[in-house]
Amino acid sequence: MAAAPPSPKRARTSKDQDDKTYHLLYHPTIPGRGECIRLIFEATQTPYVDVSNATKDDVYSILSKSPDQAHPPIFALPALRVSTKGSSSSPSSDDLIISQTTSIVEYLGHELGLAPGPPQSAANLHARQLALTALDLTVEAHDSHHPISVEFYYEDQAVESKQRAENFRSARLPKFLAHLEAVLAWNAVDADGRRGKGRYVVGDKLSYADLVWWQVIDGLLFAFPNELAARKPDYSHLFTKFYPGIKDDEGAVSAYIASDRRLPFGDGMFRHYPELDRESGDA
Amino acid sequence: MAAAPPSPKRARTSKDQDDKTYHLLYHPTIPGRGECIRLIFEATQTPYVDVSNATKDDVYSILSKSPDQAHPPIFALPALRVSTKGSSSSPSSDDLIISQTTSIVEYLGHELGLAPGPPQSAANLHARQLALTALDLTVEAHDSHHPISVEFYYEDQAVESKQRAENFRSARLPKFLAHLEAVLAWNAVDADGRRGKGRYVVGDKLSYADLVWWQVIDGLLFAFPNELAARKPDYSHLFTKFYPGIKDDEGAVSAYIASDRRLPFGDGMFRHYPELDRESGDA
Repeated sequence: MAAAPPSPKRARTSKDQDDKTYHLLYHPTIPGRGECIRLIFEATQTPYVDVSNATKDDVYSILSKSPDQAHPPIFALPALRVSTKGSSSSPSSDDLIISQTTSIVEYLGHELGLAPGPPQSAANLHARQLALTALDLTVEAHDSHHPISVEFYYEDQAVESKQRAENFRSARLPKFLAHLEAVLAWNAVDADGRRGKGRYVVGDKLSYADLVWWQVIDGLLFAFPNELAARKPDYSHLFTKFYPGIKDDEGAVSAYIASDRRLPFGDGMFRHYPELDRESGDA
Repeated sequence: MAAAPPSPKRARTSKDQDDKTYHLLYHPTIPGRGECIRLIFEATQTPYVDVSNATKDDVYSILSKSPDQAHPPIFALPALRVSTKGSSSSPSSDDLIISQTTSIVEYLGHELGLAPGPPQSAANLHARQLALTALDLTVEAHDSHHPISVEFYYEDQAVESKQRAENFRSARLPKFLAHLEAVLAWNAVDADGRRGKGRYVVGDKLSYADLVWWQVIDGLLFAFPNELAARKPDYSHLFTKFYPGIKDDEGAVSAYIASDRRLPFGDGMFRHYPELDRESGDA
């Protein structure tokens, strides 16, 4: 394992904050994939501009105003614009623009002290695998209410959704949760070998992989409350240490989670349709 | 943009080859996601052990023999085992084990001279976004024949597949192909500003992102030949420069593509069901 990076608090100095300004480009009003990125900023107490929520401007029109000779096209949001000239609010050809959620959170992890090691280290490659797997699960959770097409309304694919959600809950969800539990158990160690103690997926402190997984688990609890309630006992590190640890005992990010600044789930990736969840009390 | 890494040929020395042995762990007989990784090895003429195809052993039993105190659980194949003690064929606690396709190809890109810049550079973050987006497309292509569950046979979800494939071909596929074409056009430059000339997605030479996209395009040509034939004229950089460039004019990787060592498509991620493709001659 590589040497630990400086702790988030020591890593943030006023000089850092003058150097770079982070602009999150994402759809307004929903947490979605953008929330994984917000959690990184909140956990490290890094100032950022949540562009569409701050300005109510359409994010695609913001993107199309970027000087495009300097930046390749992006496929989808979220994107992150990193300005290196103070808090410059207008796009510049010197800005860095990054897209794909897992790439953004890993980039910020290295910048802000939430990566468990350098990019090519075993610890970071493990964190990256976990972040990618969490986002794969997000896609499957989304497709449980949109199995035929993202372009059709849920109501027009409700029958197929019921089939896909049934299979998602019985086969796919437990496979993913069992993986996360196995990782937490593998990394729990202690009796003074240390490491994560069930609270962290890699090493002995918070990383970008923890925050991405936490957001996904929270989304699943919103979307499938009965299913998760029934399965909780099978995943003890996950539901007695990892999930409550970040929710309640992780300083700045826990405070953010408890605040009204956090956007509620609704009609995004994670949706609660009672007919797609396990029936209440169904064992 | 960061300084260019040494060219693949100069980067490979006999010392490198003694230092590390690469073991690809993937399902036997199909190209699948493993093929993206094989293309990296072939393009750089790097020796590797394609474990399940070489031994016919079950890859999961190989994985479970790994010393698990040293390595966290992995979620799914492909995985890469990197041995640092010569060509050691039995797993060791010193080995690095990496999973998730895009993470493996990026790791190897940095190791073998197929990354367009250091991990946090704009060029590499662009390559990473492209690799991730190509794999997202792979999932959507797969789900066009498995919209309800990966656990059911195609025949048991053929009706839903027809709906999803229709939407995939009409809405999703062109969105992804238009993105790749836009990236190739953006990076084409020249009249002596240089860069990719339509052949490369990032910079002026081959990177891991090109190889991943090439494999995905080749899979789509296999799965949806009529759809792709009808759409080819819309994507001229893609189909007149990028795709044939790697197929025919990229040295070692082109030789591999033409060889009988390359595994044919069949019942993997990319499948050819004529009823899911555009009807022949249907404009």
